[in-house]
Amino acid sequence: MSQPAYKRQLKLGAFLQATGHHVAGWRHPGAQANAGQDLAHYVRLAQSAEAAQFDTIFLADGVAIRALDDATLPRTARAASFEPLTLLSALAAVTERIGLVATVSTTYNEPFHVARKFASLDHLSGGRAGWNVVTSWSDAEARNFSLDKHPEHAERYARAEEFVDVVTGLWDTWEDDAFLYDKESGLHFAPDKLRALDHHGKHFQVRGPLNVSRPPQGHPVIVQAGSSEAGQELAARTAEVIFTAQQSLEDAQAFYQGLKGRLARYGRTPDQLKIMPGVFPVIGRSEAEAKEKFEALQSLIHPAVGLALLSQNLGGVDLSGYPLDGPLPDDLPEPNGAKSRFQLVTGLARREGLTIRQLYLRVATARGHWSIHGTAESIADQLQAWFEGGAADGFNIMPPWLPGGLDDFIELVLPELRRRGLFRERYEGSTLREHLGLARPAHPRAFGGARQVA
Amino acid sequence: MSQPAYKRQLKLGAFLQATGHHVAGWRHPGAQANAGQDLAHYVRLAQSAEAAQFDTIFLADGVAIRALDDATLPRTARAASFEPLTLLSALAAVTERIGLVATVSTTYNEPFHVARKFASLDHLSGGRAGWNVVTSWSDAEARNFSLDKHPEHAERYARAEEFVDVVTGLWDTWEDDAFLYDKESGLHFAPDKLRALDHHGKHFQVRGPLNVSRPPQGHPVIVQAGSSEAGQELAARTAEVIFTAQQSLEDAQAFYQGLKGRLARYGRTPDQLKIMPGVFPVIGRSEAEAKEKFEALQSLIHPAVGLALLSQNLGGVDLSGYPLDGPLPDDLPEPNGAKSRFQLVTGLARREGLTIRQLYLRVATARGHWSIHGTAESIADQLQAWFEGGAADGFNIMPPWLPGGLDDFIELVLPELRRRGLFRERYEGSTLREHLGLARPAHPRAFGGARQVA
Repeated sequence: MSQPAYKRQLKLGAFLQATGHHVAGWRHPGAQANAGQDLAHYVRLAQSAEAAQFDTIFLADGVAIRALDDATLPRTARAASFEPLTLLSALAAVTERIGLVATVSTTYNEPFHVARKFASLDHLSGGRAGWNVVTSWSDAEARNFSLDKHPEHAERYARAEEFVDVVTGLWDTWEDDAFLYDKESGLHFAPDKLRALDHHGKHFQVRGPLNVSRPPQGHPVIVQAGSSEAGQELAARTAEVIFTAQQSLEDAQAFYQGLKGRLARYGRTPDQLKIMPGVFPVIGRSEAEAKEKFEALQSLIHPAVGLALLSQNLGGVDLSGYPLDGPLPDDLPEPNGAKSRFQLVTGLARREGLTIRQLYLRVATARGHWSIHGTAESIADQLQAWFEGGAADGFNIMPPWLPGGLDDFIELVLPELRRRGLFRERYEGSTLREHLGLARPAHPRAFGGARQVA
Repeated sequence: MSQPAYKRQLKLGAFLQATGHHVAGWRHPGAQANAGQDLAHYVRLAQSAEAAQFDTIFLADGVAIRALDDATLPRTARAASFEPLTLLSALAAVTERIGLVATVSTTYNEPFHVARKFASLDHLSGGRAGWNVVTSWSDAEARNFSLDKHPEHAERYARAEEFVDVVTGLWDTWEDDAFLYDKESGLHFAPDKLRALDHHGKHFQVRGPLNVSRPPQGHPVIVQAGSSEAGQELAARTAEVIFTAQQSLEDAQAFYQGLKGRLARYGRTPDQLKIMPGVFPVIGRSEAEAKEKFEALQSLIHPAVGLALLSQNLGGVDLSGYPLDGPLPDDLPEPNGAKSRFQLVTGLARREGLTIRQLYLRVATARGHWSIHGTAESIADQLQAWFEGGAADGFNIMPPWLPGGLDDFIELVLPELRRRGLFRERYEGSTLREHLGLARPAHPRAFGGARQVA
């Protein structure tokens, strides 16, 4: 056969934002404008992505309407949609192989609930669950949970560290082979294969054990997205997949190498963490068609929406006093939440010398993620360059509108990636861990009644 | 036709406890012993119940292993199973008409999460969600949420009152016709059809709005089970279905009339609250066969399990010093949690003069619910007597083991109830509210920016 035999292949996520990732994508003639309350839409997307052998679908989340201002919010399709864990549970019943990754915040949840729901999803799906760990970023979320303000960055990460430890500890309270189902003797499980957790920490006291048996994957896959110093350190210790926003090959290489370099200090090897930057692709059958499709989308952005989105990405700063066609002011205050996004967006403006209008068009497009438009071949070239250039283990694909944007990627780009041997023809296994090439965590059998949490 | 034309018909729930409600049911030769981690088992049950035109399936819940002692817990099948909201979401995708009721505690949750998840489930299922509101009862739960002890009864109910108000308030933050999906003008929703909640209460400050649009049912159906004074008052104000444990026609009539009588003070009519006692049926083709099936189940109960279960039902009291074939001691202390269960069980012992062994066999059987065994005809007679005697609007059917115990009810008892015109041939509508004959709550359009919560 003439097809090159690559051992290492791309990991691909389908990041499903209800109507698509472009802020005006819902206005695309092919977009499912009521996506946020239409299960059939998501069933179609999940089944398409599964037929295309994607590793996983991926859902973002916030526990509030993280509003633009009242005037612009109604011009977006982001105010209301399904809650991710309920949606993924429904999709688990109508898919068989694809991974199911949901975002859940450690700032506004309790670890027992989170451990339990992901364990349940992992059982429902036969080992396909993943948890994208975030610490949230908005005061709007705080105000839905009896707080005035979003907690400080350092406090959020301290809580997140402990939270992840409690969750993984709860997943290990049952041993894998605990259940006997012995009708004759009357023993349902082996008494010595269940232990309390007895966690006593700064933020949580959790006795356990979990009332769901050990997940099929041992632990559902841990995903993270933070790229601040604290976020990278948490990732290096606990994450198995990193979803990250990178704008250029050089930045992506630096991030990739930096993060992989942190793993050794936690006794981990580079292949235990898969780095998957977000990619926002607009695909044409020619370069001209791709550009035309992209410009058509951009033209649907209302200027007030663009400016409000930019302001939100910069921590809520008021930009209304500055000329749209002038530069971003130099003295913007760094926000408490989402520091990495602030740095990403201001860095982009400086590096490329963008005006406020140009910047909001870039931010509105892909929220700081890598936006590419072109033919299937040119997009495959770029993905290959990142993949082979030490910048990515795969990508989280962010279709501009849905369902058409995902269909385009599947119909045009995937065949090209497969021709190059860069993506699987068929799933190699049946769990998300198997798709991603991640080992199943062994059970720490040695622990006593009170497991020590690091 | 000779069939009598009843206008009023029974409402029926299928209360699915993983392996069945009998504590030793999992040892029955026909029981699915690994039910708690087998989605296929629940799909089969839900689809059977739907084909049989049940109003709803119903799932209990606790946020801990509410342990018997360590020695007896492994002899039950109750330590680990799916989390209800993830399980019902999965079942929503593979059913079309049957209601989906999950139990969620107000003591160990936040109202924003609960409002959101049930709204999401209601959208996923096309209007079939119901929330069974409980306040939990065990210190084991407290210890999974950074508390030492379960909060006091009065405090739990005060929190529950406010919690339900916040949840229903959040469901109303979007108006029903808020979404325009107007691609041409660029307005996704009408700005004046979304409002904050701005709840400021003793237990919660919740700004809202909810990030899920108004549920198809307006509000998912509110179910409650508490029968203490505070529980009945909460039910009279907010519940639409009551799941209750009643042992005799007289007790059930008194409870039914008492609770319906409380509705008027909240401006409600008796038909706005459906009372559905639990029924634990063992069905035979003859009375002798039914008795034999029942005794066979009882013989599977290990004495230590029976005693531990009785102790748990009495708030954790130690009964090990008393002779099994002697009476229940008179001076048992009333527990903090689950007062109504304590009263139910001690009342049963006194009324019928039961020994400790006889009492644990009764409690282990149906956890204080109405246990009946007999032919389809005699069971239908008893259900009809309660239904027509002012004791019930329907029943929550608690099969002793699964799937066989549900199959028996469907194959043997339902045809008899239908012959008598007591149960539907076909669903009348498509939402849980329509099945139950409950009106869809109108949106309180008149509220301003800060909705007043009663």
